[in-house]
Amino acid sequence: MSQDDPLASYRVPAEPYYRASGDEVRLFAAAYEARMPILLKGPTGCGKTRFIEHMAHRLGLALVTVACHEDLTASDLVGRYLLEATGTRWQDGPLALAARHGALCYLDELVEARQDTTVVVHPLADARRVLPLDKRGEQLRAHPDFLLVASYNPGYQRVTKELKTSTRQRFGALELRYPDARAEAEIVAHEGGVALELAACLVSFAGRTRALAGHGLEEGASTRMLVQAARLVTRGVALRAACRVAVVTPLTDDPDSMEALEALLTAELPP
Amino acid sequence: MSQDDPLASYRVPAEPYYRASGDEVRLFAAAYEARMPILLKGPTGCGKTRFIEHMAHRLGLALVTVACHEDLTASDLVGRYLLEATGTRWQDGPLALAARHGALCYLDELVEARQDTTVVVHPLADARRVLPLDKRGEQLRAHPDFLLVASYNPGYQRVTKELKTSTRQRFGALELRYPDARAEAEIVAHEGGVALELAACLVSFAGRTRALAGHGLEEGASTRMLVQAARLVTRGVALRAACRVAVVTPLTDDPDSMEALEALLTAELPP
Amino acid sequence: MSQDDPLASYRVPAEPYYRASGDEVRLFAAAYEARMPILLKGPTGCGKTRFIEHMAHRLGLALVTVACHEDLTASDLVGRYLLEATGTRWQDGPLALAARHGALCYLDELVEARQDTTVVVHPLADARRVLPLDKRGEQLRAHPDFLLVASYNPGYQRVTKELKTSTRQRFGALELRYPDARAEAEIVAHEGGVALELAACLVSFAGRTRALAGHGLEEGASTRMLVQAARLVTRGVALRAACRVAVVTPLTDDPDSMEALEALLTAELPP
Amino acid sequence: MSQDDPLASYRVPAEPYYRASGDEVRLFAAAYEARMPILLKGPTGCGKTRFIEHMAHRLGLALVTVACHEDLTASDLVGRYLLEATGTRWQDGPLALAARHGALCYLDELVEARQDTTVVVHPLADARRVLPLDKRGEQLRAHPDFLLVASYNPGYQRVTKELKTSTRQRFGALELRYPDARAEAEIVAHEGGVALELAACLVSFAGRTRALAGHGLEEGASTRMLVQAARLVTRGVALRAACRVAVVTPLTDDPDSMEALEALLTAELPP
Amino acid sequence: MSQDDPLASYRVPAEPYYRASGDEVRLFAAAYEARMPILLKGPTGCGKTRFIEHMAHRLGLALVTVACHEDLTASDLVGRYLLEATGTRWQDGPLALAARHGALCYLDELVEARQDTTVVVHPLADARRVLPLDKRGEQLRAHPDFLLVASYNPGYQRVTKELKTSTRQRFGALELRYPDARAEAEIVAHEGGVALELAACLVSFAGRTRALAGHGLEEGASTRMLVQAARLVTRGVALRAACRVAVVTPLTDDPDSMEALEALLTAELPP
Amino acid sequence: MSQDDPLASYRVPAEPYYRASGDEVRLFAAAYEARMPILLKGPTGCGKTRFIEHMAHRLGLALVTVACHEDLTASDLVGRYLLEATGTRWQDGPLALAARHGALCYLDELVEARQDTTVVVHPLADARRVLPLDKRGEQLRAHPDFLLVASYNPGYQRVTKELKTSTRQRFGALELRYPDARAEAEIVAHEGGVALELAACLVSFAGRTRALAGHGLEEGASTRMLVQAARLVTRGVALRAACRVAVVTPLTDDPDSMEALEALLTAELPP
Repeated sequence: MSQDDPLASYRVPAEPYYRASGDEVRLFAAAYEARMPILLKGPTGCGKTRFIEHMAHRLGLALVTVACHEDLTASDLVGRYLLEATGTRWQDGPLALAARHGALCYLDELVEARQDTTVVVHPLADARRVLPLDKRGEQLRAHPDFLLVASYNPGYQRVTKELKTSTRQRFGALELRYPDARAEAEIVAHEGGVALELAACLVSFAGRTRALAGHGLEEGASTRMLVQAARLVTRGVALRAACRVAVVTPLTDDPDSMEALEALLTAELPP
Repeated sequence: MSQDDPLASYRVPAEPYYRASGDEVRLFAAAYEARMPILLKGPTGCGKTRFIEHMAHRLGLALVTVACHEDLTASDLVGRYLLEATGTRWQDGPLALAARHGALCYLDELVEARQDTTVVVHPLADARRVLPLDKRGEQLRAHPDFLLVASYNPGYQRVTKELKTSTRQRFGALELRYPDARAEAEIVAHEGGVALELAACLVSFAGRTRALAGHGLEEGASTRMLVQAARLVTRGVALRAACRVAVVTPLTDDPDSMEALEALLTAELPP
Repeated sequence: MSQDDPLASYRVPAEPYYRASGDEVRLFAAAYEARMPILLKGPTGCGKTRFIEHMAHRLGLALVTVACHEDLTASDLVGRYLLEATGTRWQDGPLALAARHGALCYLDELVEARQDTTVVVHPLADARRVLPLDKRGEQLRAHPDFLLVASYNPGYQRVTKELKTSTRQRFGALELRYPDARAEAEIVAHEGGVALELAACLVSFAGRTRALAGHGLEEGASTRMLVQAARLVTRGVALRAACRVAVVTPLTDDPDSMEALEALLTAELPP
Repeated sequence: MSQDDPLASYRVPAEPYYRASGDEVRLFAAAYEARMPILLKGPTGCGKTRFIEHMAHRLGLALVTVACHEDLTASDLVGRYLLEATGTRWQDGPLALAARHGALCYLDELVEARQDTTVVVHPLADARRVLPLDKRGEQLRAHPDFLLVASYNPGYQRVTKELKTSTRQRFGALELRYPDARAEAEIVAHEGGVALELAACLVSFAGRTRALAGHGLEEGASTRMLVQAARLVTRGVALRAACRVAVVTPLTDDPDSMEALEALLTAELPP
Repeated sequence: MSQDDPLASYRVPAEPYYRASGDEVRLFAAAYEARMPILLKGPTGCGKTRFIEHMAHRLGLALVTVACHEDLTASDLVGRYLLEATGTRWQDGPLALAARHGALCYLDELVEARQDTTVVVHPLADARRVLPLDKRGEQLRAHPDFLLVASYNPGYQRVTKELKTSTRQRFGALELRYPDARAEAEIVAHEGGVALELAACLVSFAGRTRALAGHGLEEGASTRMLVQAARLVTRGVALRAACRVAVVTPLTDDPDSMEALEALLTAELPP
Repeated sequence: MSQDDPLASYRVPAEPYYRASGDEVRLFAAAYEARMPILLKGPTGCGKTRFIEHMAHRLGLALVTVACHEDLTASDLVGRYLLEATGTRWQDGPLALAARHGALCYLDELVEARQDTTVVVHPLADARRVLPLDKRGEQLRAHPDFLLVASYNPGYQRVTKELKTSTRQRFGALELRYPDARAEAEIVAHEGGVALELAACLVSFAGRTRALAGHGLEEGASTRMLVQAARLVTRGVALRAACRVAVVTPLTDDPDSMEALEALLTAELPP
């Protein structure tokens, strides 16, 4: 079956729930129409992954995701020869796979990749839309449906890890944020399976933790964490205990921050 | 036989003795029900490994353990092609093995892995529950029974080795501690094969060493060390000599700390 | 077909639009006639890639591009043996491919390559015009049509990444700049599909952003970004929103710079 | 033959001469009975290697030694697939070999191994007694006779190379020292083939050099060096010349220390 | 054909033009007669490569050149096994190739190689004249005609990259300099195809740029650059434009140096 | 033939000329008789290599030399599996080759090897005389004739590269120095083919350069350099020119040192 559709395992099986917080859906669609590569900027857990899954499904495209990291090599992206009984066989890497067959290629946390690996996407990200397969001695011309998408969290950027200007200039960019309180409560209620009131309560608590970000806490509770807390509650765990497991204990190891979060827990949530 | 059950050698053969010190068993079970990845936080030798073995047995799941370290590559976790006489054969790494067949995958001391290797678990740790097998050009959708569990010792965290927020936010977390004195004595007696009085004596000595942690000693005696001392005693070694071999000599190379521990030995234990 | 022409996938299919901003076309042609290797110096997005594509097409040569980076090895450039069912097969790297068959070999952002990888191009860049294929135990004499071209952005040069004098002395060099306002507007109108007035407006906005370069912003908007903004506009996105996606959001993550750019957007562009 | 006994080449052929300096033999035997992993701590050349050979012979076990160093990988310890004409064959590394067939596995100078390689011994060193063979997708359960032994020289420990607490806590430990003067003279006489008087003379000289340790000299003469000097004497080399070759010249390159040792030579030894 | 003469592609096809500036030809010939390995010291572009090509042709020897760099491994120099359909085949590296068949082996910019790679040439560079082929378990005795030649630019030497004394002491050395003005003009006229007057003019300009070396400019214009400028002139480029392309723009990215060179251009050269 | 004698290419073909400067021949012979591993300490070019070749020939042993460097791996010393058409074949590294068949194994400049590679020689250098071949899962017991010899130059030792005490304590050591003036002149005359008077003149010049060592010059002229100068003279090069090529130019790149050496040249040598 995967012979027939090499992207079969990369298709998004059902339309993922996504509640837009601005005009990001319309802008992404226009950018796709212009085949402009897109950077998604935003904090952890705000919904970047969900958004790109949603857009892939909406545009009818397969989604090939690459979690970037410092040891990702150009060959990991582009492909390599595999040795088989009957000789070597070329295996497209995820970037070549997406470019050849016309998928979205989503480079998650691109800023984590070495700047040097990053340059292999350059010819796919400008007017050329080609990918040199040096090991095969040929250039792959991208499928007309192909588009490159990348994400990163600007809050994390360190001096040693920044996108090069020559990379940035090849992309358009959309900035995603946490949804507003009402929208976030709807998401938590929908995804976590709890009543809207309880969800609103969790969102309010999350808001207070986000205010601590930068003051002893690297980041506040994400929407994802609230959904996880809600799911524990539906499995019979008391609300504060659920938030302790799903939010407080993962967020920090620092005793002071832990205490501050515990205090918020008591103040904001019913027992 | 392993053809029939690829997880055969990973099953926990008998129910491991575990004495709960809080509601960790109930919370872990609820988290598993919600398929929420779990971080176990706690000091060395407090029983994290024993706890996860216990939960695996209780939930009827195989347990695939990976001891994390700085040279662990994504391929080590995910898998690779092996060359054979008749061609190449794909060999799942421990993470893919667990995800494919529905085991608990336990990443021991996750904080020791490079942050960059850590990102390969992200798509398995959020709503997607997929593992891209880039070298095969496909995505593995996790077995419904699969769950990711990780552990680390917050006391060890160094500036250069911290879990990224984007990793933390994908996990719920449970904090484990040394059991209280009575519970610990029961464990030492049960596991070390000595009388409860002697065990209590060892636990009291351990408490004194733990008070030295941070003052010349990195950590105090763990429950595990007390069990080892007890076992030497049952083999005819005098109590203080047993504690010297099982606790004092391994704990430190520093002459001052050595002397302090030796003094505790004399003060706390019968000759 | 690629058996007949090993450079088939490297040919530039149609004459790329290029609007010269000086005598670079004539000088490059003379340098090619003298087979003098050429360095293209200039800022990101000013048109270096477009220029070399244009010259390749004009001279009737295939264009083999290598995006340089720190992990590019000599073998990546020169070639390697691939193992096949019937033995090993030599696979020319892009440099050997171009040298053997007479293409332009374009080393994009050469300064990103390790100084040590750079030396492998030395014998091709001086009177010898040979490439030692050490792994084959032979020397490749370059095809008479072959020429080496490299590019870099002098504005990026860091202390740790500089071209060695022994490399520089083997090349002639051309400096490219952003086109003047009128020429740039023509390019944006032509490439972006908008009216010249709107293009001029975008160019004026770009000029203001370039003045910020070095003052909080690494670089200003490139011609390429203006073309992308224009293309969004033709797909129904409002002008300012298009510039936000195509220029402002990609250019910076710094809130102050973001604000400055947003102010320029309001001042320079109609709503 | 090695088919029948995979540990054949690791058996200690004859009982090695060992003169105990404390109760280390009895304590090691009890630790082995409890299958408690053991750390041997002590200075270079004090007899750690000889002791473990002695214990292996006494307990009737094969001894698989691994000299640890910074480039020792987990695969070096655990094993790897070897490609053969008829396909790949799994080759146990020394740790897996010892664990599978029930030998002592002796990790010499464990502190030299990367902390990260060290963690692969953890599951063999606690109650689990398993070794994950990730490349085979299985776990090896250790042979009941197997025991892990490691050594290091606490005097060498540098800030960058320390055993992790989580490693230490899995081991019991024995501290070995140079034997007392009389015992050492007996060893030198027995091993070096000289009269007890001459051996005593060498031991007295060694004692003086050990007093210099830390004062310009990293360490003093070891028992091993005295044995070597004695052996030169039995081959007709004059005593001082023998000590110069076997002790003074190897111990230091520093002219001052050299001179100090030369002075001791003249003062302590007959011409 | 290359079966008959394994050095065929390394022969210098025609006598390269070389104008000696001292007694270097006679001294090199005597050194070759004594089979004394030779270091060529001198600035970039002064003619070291041309000189060694000239000597190779004059002595009737093939010339195997290795451009040294930091990633050059011992195996790159010595050789390796290649896997083929019928088994592995040994492939001599360039050093072994030259040593086995009696060529000049020219290690260009030897100082760029790691000191550690450098040691593999030691046994070929002293009285032994052997090359251990450790991977084959044998030693290669050098062909009587073989000689090792190396070059470096003493002006580049950095603290971290210096030839070890043990390497230097195995070589004799010749120091090459830029030719005197008259000789250089003859070279430029001959190689660049311009009249002697114009060549003299270029040489005078070069002399002024060399005076700037160390004052903002790393090095001045080399003879090679003048030849390139001359060649542009013969293709119809104006003199100053030719010097801009062939000398000024490649030499520096620094605006001040650029301006100084531009001023020299105007002062020294007719329009 | 090499099938019959695996050490054939490592035999020293003729007795190398060696003029002893002390009792080093007798002491080495006694050390060999006691199978005590030997360190040769001494400056570059003083004759360490010649001495060990001489001793190998005198003792009737093959000499397997390894030039140590930082990238020498344990596998390089011990051996590895090679893949062949009919399966893998084990290839002894030089250390295993020498140990298996009973040669001298000479580790030249041992201090250049990583301390971590160095430890693999430990079990061959103490009473065990074994070499673990971990990749084969066996231990090699050394041939009775085998001996380990290593050399280093104590003058070069840097803080980061020192022999570990645990290595030093396994070796005896001999210190070699430059021969006295008369002996050195005889060597130069014999090896360089010049009259004793001229040789004495060169030795006197060398003595003056050695006095400069540490004062701007890393080391003075070695005996080897004098022999090379003499050989140039016998080929018709004038004495001072010969010394310039063979001694002065290789010794330094520093203009001041160069000048000092040039002055010595004029003062000490006839024109």
